[in-house]
Amino acid sequence: MLIDSIFGPKFKKYQIGNIVKLAKDNDLFLDCGKKISNFNIAYQTYGKLNKDKSNAILICHAFTGDQYVASDNPITGKKGWWHELVAEGKSIDTSKYFVICSNVIGGCMGSFGPKDINPEDGKIYGANFPIITIADMVKAQKLLIEHFGIEKLFSVIGGSMGGFQALEWAASFPEMVRSIIALATSFRHNVENIAFNEIGRKAIMADSNWQAGGYLEKKTFPEKGLAVARMAAHITYMSKESLQRKFGRNLQEKRELSYQFDIDFQIESYLDHQGSSFISRYDPNSYLFISKAMDYFDLEEDRGQDLTEIFANSKIKFCLISFSDDWLFPPSELQILSQKLNIAGLNVSYVNIASCHGHDSFLVENEAMERTIKGFLENN
Amino acid sequence: MLIDSIFGPKFKKYQIGNIVKLAKDNDLFLDCGKKISNFNIAYQTYGKLNKDKSNAILICHAFTGDQYVASDNPITGKKGWWHELVAEGKSIDTSKYFVICSNVIGGCMGSFGPKDINPEDGKIYGANFPIITIADMVKAQKLLIEHFGIEKLFSVIGGSMGGFQALEWAASFPEMVRSIIALATSFRHNVENIAFNEIGRKAIMADSNWQAGGYLEKKTFPEKGLAVARMAAHITYMSKESLQRKFGRNLQEKRELSYQFDIDFQIESYLDHQGSSFISRYDPNSYLFISKAMDYFDLEEDRGQDLTEIFANSKIKFCLISFSDDWLFPPSELQILSQKLNIAGLNVSYVNIASCHGHDSFLVENEAMERTIKGFLENN
Repeated sequence: MLIDSIFGPKFKKYQIGNIVKLAKDNDLFLDCGKKISNFNIAYQTYGKLNKDKSNAILICHAFTGDQYVASDNPITGKKGWWHELVAEGKSIDTSKYFVICSNVIGGCMGSFGPKDINPEDGKIYGANFPIITIADMVKAQKLLIEHFGIEKLFSVIGGSMGGFQALEWAASFPEMVRSIIALATSFRHNVENIAFNEIGRKAIMADSNWQAGGYLEKKTFPEKGLAVARMAAHITYMSKESLQRKFGRNLQEKRELSYQFDIDFQIESYLDHQGSSFISRYDPNSYLFISKAMDYFDLEEDRGQDLTEIFANSKIKFCLISFSDDWLFPPSELQILSQKLNIAGLNVSYVNIASCHGHDSFLVENEAMERTIKGFLENN
Repeated sequence: MLIDSIFGPKFKKYQIGNIVKLAKDNDLFLDCGKKISNFNIAYQTYGKLNKDKSNAILICHAFTGDQYVASDNPITGKKGWWHELVAEGKSIDTSKYFVICSNVIGGCMGSFGPKDINPEDGKIYGANFPIITIADMVKAQKLLIEHFGIEKLFSVIGGSMGGFQALEWAASFPEMVRSIIALATSFRHNVENIAFNEIGRKAIMADSNWQAGGYLEKKTFPEKGLAVARMAAHITYMSKESLQRKFGRNLQEKRELSYQFDIDFQIESYLDHQGSSFISRYDPNSYLFISKAMDYFDLEEDRGQDLTEIFANSKIKFCLISFSDDWLFPPSELQILSQKLNIAGLNVSYVNIASCHGHDSFLVENEAMERTIKGFLENN
């Protein structure tokens, strides 16, 4: 099963593509205090960089997303996760913009991550990978942007954890960003988000095949634990209403309850499918490290400053988009941010879009979202 | 660790108490088609049954609850789960009423359940326990009520899964019930509830110590899987606001993030504690069977009838209580039921109580709830 996955030859083959070694001359200092150098970043680009290098848009992916934002994903064979938005003539028009999307550090799609070899001991990092933060991801992205010779990004755009990165860009490197678009996100990971992430981590670690993070060395794989983590997370991506509309209490390919421990309901089958398809594309240790990075994210705590102070005098144009039935990142979170940015006198567009797909709304075709992004970019 | 738990000698000792063998002469037919006989029901009573046996109240416990509604729980050492409500002079006044609370079949506190010996093969049931339903639990309770010689219950009261039982009583044995009080519940388990239960089941089954349900025979115990199941469920019992108020992003006994896979946040510590304390009091197979019984519950589907038809001409007085911030059983569920019962012209009191403890509100001191129950019972 894992032959063609992120651990198999198919992965190694496509890895030959867009990989760049960064921090070759100067170390990158992580928030945890460790430093890394000469590490990989895997990325995809779409469109052409213009002569004055002013048309670059960085798109940041969500938790288990990847750099295949607009082109087919070589692991899953599926279309890019935002192919509806990122293409010629679309909201993020690749005939105008040079779009960059890179796999975050800590990820498992080619960038520096827990399945890499630790140069210090020649062993796979596993659980010994350094704890990384959203700010670390952004510092690595900055090196990639500099690699392209880009001094100022036209925009940084992201949903969910991608929105964390967009906001971190605005806070950390304001001189390098003209605008950001942050969707279905917040300026911090809240307590309920942390709680669900903790469930996922515990589910992975509870699997005896996790082997204290050393499953690759031991040639095991905590697939059951990873599937449970994904299933639990997946519920949080949908709304009660979308679950009801899509599945309700409908039975799966049967007319009557089985009175066995089989799958009875469509929702059970759906969640099982989500779990089992996830395990062939995602690294359990990446799940642990990226989820931890999300939990650590809080712009205000990180800096000991209020949002109004953090962004005081910022020249960046902000576009904040929440979705009405997103309960993982409820509209109230971006409304707080919008208020604080307005207090600071900044240029802020805030839109709360009526939605019916919960948190996943930013990944689903949504005309209001697409038109909002298009309008914001065109007038930027 | 498990020595003093539900599997150890302490359990066996207190088991000598209130246990009755039921279905000694006639088999009890389960909804799955199987029949059981001469099975145990463990129960507690409080107060005295009056001469005409008209003052009996049956209290039905929730998913992982038990018969220790008003007296100390011998396993946990904690006070009864509703000791604030069930006592002399309290809402459910034991100087007036004879209160009965029994462990549901499928449970693990002395009633017929998966850790019993299957008389057919002399082995522990484990995963071979029959699939049971809420209606089966109620049929067993009916035998207990008849054992006491009670022809009509003054009231049947329950929250969450206990509310399922109260409503099932009203639907199945209307002539035996004067009134019911159903709290934080619904007339069916909805798709989101099923989804969360499926996570819990998968977490238990993912634990290699579950041993296909045969852990007691093999002397193992899926404690990690059971803990993950409990942690996931526990999040659904609280509201976003109560999590925020109680924990927020507060750190656990430290001033700074650890940059390790330790516990950083109080919410992580709290969930871990919930998981680890649960495993010493609950049977993993009971978790599977009871959660399945909840998922199967739908009064309308079971009967192929609308609620207005099911309860047509019922003489029962209904008291329905929802809690404003309960997202597991949102107020909308009981509002639907209330509307249908009103359409049927029945005697219905519906109260939506402002709450700040989410689904758990019915288990927490709540003056409005207590006064509502007291008022309803006194005027019944």
